[in-house]
Amino acid sequence: MDRAIELAIANVRSARGGPFGAVVVRGGQVVGEGANRVTASNDPTAHAEVLAIRDACARLGTFVLSGCEIYTSCEPCPMCLGAIYWARLDRIHFACTQADARDAGFDDAFLYSEIRRDPAGRSIASASEGRERALAAFEEWKQSASRISY
Amino acid sequence: MDRAIELAIANVRSARGGPFGAVVVRGGQVVGEGANRVTASNDPTAHAEVLAIRDACARLGTFVLSGCEIYTSCEPCPMCLGAIYWARLDRIHFACTQADARDAGFDDAFLYSEIRRDPAGRSIASASEGRERALAAFEEWKQSASRISY
Repeated sequence: MDRAIELAIANVRSARGGPFGAVVVRGGQVVGEGANRVTASNDPTAHAEVLAIRDACARLGTFVLSGCEIYTSCEPCPMCLGAIYWARLDRIHFACTQADARDAGFDDAFLYSEIRRDPAGRSIASASEGRERALAAFEEWKQSASRISY
Repeated sequence: MDRAIELAIANVRSARGGPFGAVVVRGGQVVGEGANRVTASNDPTAHAEVLAIRDACARLGTFVLSGCEIYTSCEPCPMCLGAIYWARLDRIHFACTQADARDAGFDDAFLYSEIRRDPAGRSIASASEGRERALAAFEEWKQSASRISY
């Protein structure tokens, strides 16, 4: 956690992104690191946890981080929590909370309230169209001999 | 939506990832595209929507996609929905549903149920530690003259 916090503070001082840092650890060794790069890299998905996961996967040559844990300087937002699930991490260690993030001007708590709503009640409108045509992709997937599940 | 579905089907046939495609559109023009590349690129965050958002931001040179809409062959998972909020997209058009994705073996519906739970009830354990030390990053952020908010 010391390293995650160090990354967060260094990120503010270098003006490269928001005050967030994260590391992925396996067996006591850091195997991935990330600090927020949203503004510096023009990438709204470049949160510390996402970058730490991508770094660990690249270093370990896998898309599955079972056996690893993540340390993050702030409670993961819904996007990052989703990334943590998809990466199959074993455990989350977080320092600050989504309320702390809100007090610093970030939308994490708002996103949790939005994601809990039904789509019709969310601030970003969504509409369904073309489902029948799109189901063909799933049908091909189910029948594909070369598919790699994840 | 035709293009998003086309990307999804082509992705299955080329065995480069899951059966998902997405495009970001501004004023009737496609400004970003993505197809799932989780397994091909060893990146569990490489969902179609995330890649389409990253592509659009790179092409447009911005981290804010206000004025743009996303078309995706399947309802966004919580990670992708979070990415859509952080990117400030105006509207979501989706084809298949999270139930369709579940029937094809994907965890989207499970993730929605997990994210709605309190952290203590989730299948990935989480613990808080070091909050007092980590708050220093937020304090520096609030006082930073060079910060770029997002």
